[in-house]
Amino acid sequence: MSIDKHIPDSTIRRLSLYLRFLEEFEESGVTTVSSGALAERGGTTAAQVRKDLSHFGSFGKRGLGYSVEELTGVLRGILGLKSRWNVALIGAGRIGAALFEYQPFRERGFDITTVVDHDPEKVGHRLGDVTIQNDKDLERTLKARSIDMVILAVPASVAQGVLDKVVGAGVRAVLNYAPIQLRAPDEVALRSVSMLLELEGLSYALSRGPQP
Amino acid sequence: MSIDKHIPDSTIRRLSLYLRFLEEFEESGVTTVSSGALAERGGTTAAQVRKDLSHFGSFGKRGLGYSVEELTGVLRGILGLKSRWNVALIGAGRIGAALFEYQPFRERGFDITTVVDHDPEKVGHRLGDVTIQNDKDLERTLKARSIDMVILAVPASVAQGVLDKVVGAGVRAVLNYAPIQLRAPDEVALRSVSMLLELEGLSYALSRGPQP
Repeated sequence: MSIDKHIPDSTIRRLSLYLRFLEEFEESGVTTVSSGALAERGGTTAAQVRKDLSHFGSFGKRGLGYSVEELTGVLRGILGLKSRWNVALIGAGRIGAALFEYQPFRERGFDITTVVDHDPEKVGHRLGDVTIQNDKDLERTLKARSIDMVILAVPASVAQGVLDKVVGAGVRAVLNYAPIQLRAPDEVALRSVSMLLELEGLSYALSRGPQP
Repeated sequence: MSIDKHIPDSTIRRLSLYLRFLEEFEESGVTTVSSGALAERGGTTAAQVRKDLSHFGSFGKRGLGYSVEELTGVLRGILGLKSRWNVALIGAGRIGAALFEYQPFRERGFDITTVVDHDPEKVGHRLGDVTIQNDKDLERTLKARSIDMVILAVPASVAQGVLDKVVGAGVRAVLNYAPIQLRAPDEVALRSVSMLLELEGLSYALSRGPQP
């Protein structure tokens, strides 16, 4: 499959939403689905669904909709969910530990095989079945273990420095939980998540009071 | 303070990032900070920092930068962090339980005082110091407890229905963890977070292989 380089993040997000919906349909025995139904799930229009999918090939039959089984397989392939990914968690604090315990990561093929922390009191202890390692020689550790992806759950003040080492080790995908806007080279996929930022967006909205 | 209605979400996010930075500075005893330093933290330019802040008043002295103490207080006020918010968690599954345990929510003033679940095996049990309630009479429960904000951690298939009840109860701020694009009236602030969506964005990027 030849993939256009410039597919926007918003399209990829919608593909993830469509996939969730298809999986629920699959579980309940539904075999075909319309672009209209997928649109509803992704908060968009049937035309946008067709456009989103057209980046990746030609699917579905006019008037008949999409085969749930076929499209599920196609989307899993596009989203890289037919592989298992070797993930390192850097930072075994509260957020890191909660992420480690989060089962859906594993169910989706993201295996946290390596946990690294700076704190000597944590190093050598276990998180689940993984022994926490020292963050010295971080680059060597990531390379030796062929890490595909890093989850960064370190304090904001050190996040850029750690990310630079991660990039130096050749890792090309990073999920950042530190509340800071990080910089990475173009070839590195970097996403940020912050529950607190979202909550503060809400408290901002609430404290403005009712709008006219 | 008179606040422009149309401040973009991206500005509010940067204000949260600036605030984190200011708080670290405050802890380490730094008293003034330049717009350039704030810009670096927010992944933007000094001019953008000045523009972001100018929505809310006139701060800082030309050539001297901003007082860390003053600006910290101003940003806390803008972001609604001088209040405590009464939060209901709907959905006490894996994600819900992890969110409940997440201490920084409380430290920031978000008190999860109410937990609701659909599962009869969970109702009546406790999450921390809160007894899980039945989701029958959800609207009445939210109203009776004067809930300001809801964290929605329910399956995607029921999320819109639950959200409609939440909105019906007069709640104006919702943080959604279900992997679905939800619809709410304009007067309701709705943010979505999905760790899995972000990870899938990364696995998509990885499975495309190295770019030329």
